[in-house]
Amino acid sequence: MLVEACLLIIPAVVGLIYHEQVSVRAFLISAAAAAGAGGALSLVKPGGSNIFAREGFAIVGLSWIMLSLFGCLPFVISRQIPDFVDAFFETVSGFTTTGSSILTDIEALDNAMLFWRSFTHWVGGMGVLVFGMIIIPLGGKRSMHLLRAESPGPSSGKLVPKMRDTAKILYGIYIGLSVILLIFLLAGGMSLFDSLINVFGTAGTGGYSNHGASIAYFDSEYFDVVIGIFMILFGVNFNLYFLILLKRFRPALRSEELHWYLGIIAFAVITIAANINSIYGSVHQSLRHAFFQVASVITTTGFATMDFDQWPQYSRHLLVLLMFVGACAGSTGGGLKVSRIILLLRTVGRGMRRMIHSKSVEKIRFEGRTIEEETINTCLVYLAIYCLTGVISVLLISLNNYSFEVNVTAVISCMNNIGPGLGMVGPAGNFSAFSAFSKLLLSFDMLAGRLEFLPILLLLSPKTWKR
Amino acid sequence: MLVEACLLIIPAVVGLIYHEQVSVRAFLISAAAAAGAGGALSLVKPGGSNIFAREGFAIVGLSWIMLSLFGCLPFVISRQIPDFVDAFFETVSGFTTTGSSILTDIEALDNAMLFWRSFTHWVGGMGVLVFGMIIIPLGGKRSMHLLRAESPGPSSGKLVPKMRDTAKILYGIYIGLSVILLIFLLAGGMSLFDSLINVFGTAGTGGYSNHGASIAYFDSEYFDVVIGIFMILFGVNFNLYFLILLKRFRPALRSEELHWYLGIIAFAVITIAANINSIYGSVHQSLRHAFFQVASVITTTGFATMDFDQWPQYSRHLLVLLMFVGACAGSTGGGLKVSRIILLLRTVGRGMRRMIHSKSVEKIRFEGRTIEEETINTCLVYLAIYCLTGVISVLLISLNNYSFEVNVTAVISCMNNIGPGLGMVGPAGNFSAFSAFSKLLLSFDMLAGRLEFLPILLLLSPKTWKR
Repeated sequence: MLVEACLLIIPAVVGLIYHEQVSVRAFLISAAAAAGAGGALSLVKPGGSNIFAREGFAIVGLSWIMLSLFGCLPFVISRQIPDFVDAFFETVSGFTTTGSSILTDIEALDNAMLFWRSFTHWVGGMGVLVFGMIIIPLGGKRSMHLLRAESPGPSSGKLVPKMRDTAKILYGIYIGLSVILLIFLLAGGMSLFDSLINVFGTAGTGGYSNHGASIAYFDSEYFDVVIGIFMILFGVNFNLYFLILLKRFRPALRSEELHWYLGIIAFAVITIAANINSIYGSVHQSLRHAFFQVASVITTTGFATMDFDQWPQYSRHLLVLLMFVGACAGSTGGGLKVSRIILLLRTVGRGMRRMIHSKSVEKIRFEGRTIEEETINTCLVYLAIYCLTGVISVLLISLNNYSFEVNVTAVISCMNNIGPGLGMVGPAGNFSAFSAFSKLLLSFDMLAGRLEFLPILLLLSPKTWKR
Repeated sequence: MLVEACLLIIPAVVGLIYHEQVSVRAFLISAAAAAGAGGALSLVKPGGSNIFAREGFAIVGLSWIMLSLFGCLPFVISRQIPDFVDAFFETVSGFTTTGSSILTDIEALDNAMLFWRSFTHWVGGMGVLVFGMIIIPLGGKRSMHLLRAESPGPSSGKLVPKMRDTAKILYGIYIGLSVILLIFLLAGGMSLFDSLINVFGTAGTGGYSNHGASIAYFDSEYFDVVIGIFMILFGVNFNLYFLILLKRFRPALRSEELHWYLGIIAFAVITIAANINSIYGSVHQSLRHAFFQVASVITTTGFATMDFDQWPQYSRHLLVLLMFVGACAGSTGGGLKVSRIILLLRTVGRGMRRMIHSKSVEKIRFEGRTIEEETINTCLVYLAIYCLTGVISVLLISLNNYSFEVNVTAVISCMNNIGPGLGMVGPAGNFSAFSAFSKLLLSFDMLAGRLEFLPILLLLSPKTWKR
C-alpha cells in the first residue's frame, strides 16, 4: 500500500506537466488513501511472525487484489472511468500485464491516466511483490514462500543463494532492457510520452497503448521491428540474461526452452505469413505483420499493428494456440509457458511408452537435468487446474449470450494475460459489453492466470479464512 | 474380416425385403471382399504366438481401420455415397458410435444402406473386438492386452476372472437392454424398421437416424422419454448391471460414478430448462427438450429432437461442456468419462493441498478403494494427450477456413464420439463441407477418441512398424 502510494505520485507529476488538474487531484487523493490504508495496516502487529505456505499464497493473492482496488481509484475519482467495476477490470488488466480493456475511446483519457494505466503494466511486469521484496526486509523462509507464489513458470531457479539479491538482479536486468528499448524508440523519433507508454507495455508484456490503433498508429516498420524484437526479448527467461552478464554464454545459448521458444516463433511467423500473403500481396509485408502479431501474442503482450481477427482462419487459430503456449518461464510473459509445454510433451511421450511397458522407469530430462516426479506431477495438475478454471469460466461467461468464439477467446486471453481475443474482443474490439459479473470473473481469471492459480484459488477455500 | 463378412449379409437380407437390388449386390460383393481378405489373412501364420502390448494396441487400431475400410465398400459400390472418403468417414463414424454424418439427404438412401449405417453403431457399441473375443479362442495374456486397449474408461474392472466370460456377460446385458428398448418402441407404435434403427443408435450411443429430423420426426413425447431414458441407461457402467443381475443392489446403487453421472444430468437438465423456458413457454416442454438433449449429449449419442444450436448461449455452452464429460466408464458412451472427471477433480484438489504442504502423502479414493498413483498419473497423461490431439486437430482443420466455433466443436464432437457440434456441424447441419483431408483427420479423431488414443497414436510411431 505504501509503495503504491509512492507509485501513484508519478502519474500526478505527469498530470501537472500536462495541466490536468482533475487527474492530479484524483491521483493525490488515491495516493493518500493508499498511504492511509498502508499506514493503518502497518500499525497492526501480527500475532506470530511465521508465514506458512497457505498464508504466503494468501498474502500474494490479497496483495494483488488490494493493489488493484487502490490502483483503480484515480479512474473512478476523476470519473474518466466512472464505473467502479470497469475501473477495477482495467487496473487488474494493467497489473496482471494482460492489456484487455473496457475503454471504447482510449484517446479521450487524460495523459496522466494513460500513463498510470500503462505504468501498472511495468510495475506488474516483474511482480509487485518481487519489487516489494527488495524494499521490505524479509529473510529466509518467508520470502521463499512469497517467491514461490510469485515467480512465473514451473521452477523459479535460484540465480544466487539470497532471494533479495536475486530480485535485485532480475529487476536490474528489467530496468536495463527497458532503458535500451526507450533509447531505440526515442532514436526512431517517437515522443518521450509515447516511448514511455510503449516501453511499459512491452517490458511488462502488457500491451496497453495510448492510441486506439495501438502500434499501427505509428505506421512505421522501424517501430514494428524494434517493439517486435523487444517483446520477444522480454519473453525470454531472465535467468539467461543473468548468465550472459556472467559471460556464461554457452549455457545461456544452449537453453532448450530458448530453442523451442524461437522455433515456435519461427514456425508461426512463416506459416502465418504464407497464409496471409494473399491479403498483403508481398512477402515482405506478410512477414512484417506475421512477425509482429506472433511476437505480440506468444509473449502475451497484445499490441496490434493489424486486426488479426480479419485474417484467414488458420492464422486466427494458430494465434489462439500461441495464446495457450505463452512465453518462457521466468519472463514477464503469461500463458502456460514454453517450459511447461515441453515438460507436458515429454510426459505424454513417456506416459504412452509406460502404457506399453508398464515396468518402465524412464526419467524425464530438461535443460540437461533430470526432472523430479513431483515437478512433473505438479505440471500435470497445473494443466488440469488450468483446463478446469477455463471451462467453468467459459460456461459462466456464456450467460451474457455472446458467441462461443467470443467467450472462449475472452477467457483464454484473460487467463493467459494476453489482451485481445477474437471477434468482439479482437484487436479492434474491447471488453466493455460484458456484464459486471463477467468483468469480475475475467478479472479473477487474469489474477489467477498471472499468479499461477494457487494464490487466487486458495482465497476461495474456507480453510484459508479459518484461524 | 470374416466376422464382418457375416455381418454384411444382414443388410443384404434387408435389401431383399425392400427389393433394393443394387444395394443387395453391393453388400454381397463387400461381404465377399471381406471374406476373401479375411481368408487370405488367416492363411498367413504369424512367426510367434506372443502378442506384446505394442502389438496388441496396433492390432486393435488396425482392426478398426480395416473394418471401416471394408464396411464402407457397400456405400461406394452402390454409389449411394460415391466418394470414398465420405463413405469411409460415414463408416468410421458408425463403428466408433459417433454419428457425425456427411449426408445432406439421409432419406435418399436405400433402407438396406440405412440399416447397415445404424447397424455399425450397434456392432461398434460394445467394441467389435469384445465381440470378436467371444468367437475367436484367445486365452490369458493375449486377450488381456486386447481388452486393455478396447475397454472404455480408466479401469476395465474384471467382472469374472476369465476375459471371455466377461465379454459374454457384457454382451448379454447389451443384447438384453436392446431387446427391452425394442419392445418399448414397438409398443409405442413405431415400425419395426424404425425401431431397429433407433435401438442401434441408442444402444451404441451412436445417434444415426434414418430420418433427417432425427427423433423429432416422430414428434412423440413417449418416444422422447423412452429413448432419453435408454440413452442414459446405455451410458451407465455395465458392471453395475452385472451387480444387479447378481442381486448385489447396494454396491450397484452406491456407485460414486453413477451418483455423479445422474447429478450432472440433473444439474444440466434443470439449468438448461430454465435457460430455454422463454422459447418453449412451458416448464413441461422445456424440461422435455432439455432432458432429451442432455441425455443425448452426455451419453455421446447425438440424437436430436430440437436444434440446440438455436438455443441461448448458456445452453449451447453447457452442452459443449457435457461433450467433454461423456458417459460412465465401461459403457458404450465416449468422452473423457465421468470417472476420469472425478479422478481429475480429486487429483486437482490434492495437488493444490500438496503445493501447500509439500510433505502430504494423501491418497485418492474412488468407489471405496484407494487409487494407485500409476492410475492417477495415467489419467493426467490421458488429459494431456486429449488436449494435445484436440488442439492440433483444430489447427489443422482451420485450413478449411470455417469459423472457430465450427472447427472446435467439430473436433470435440468427433473426438468424444458424439455426432453434432455447433453451427455448420450442429444438429441441423452435417460434415459434408469439409475437405477430404479434414474428413480423414476427423475420422482419425473419432478412432483415436473411441480407442482412448493409444492404439491409434501408436500407429503413427515408426517403432511400431519395425521388425
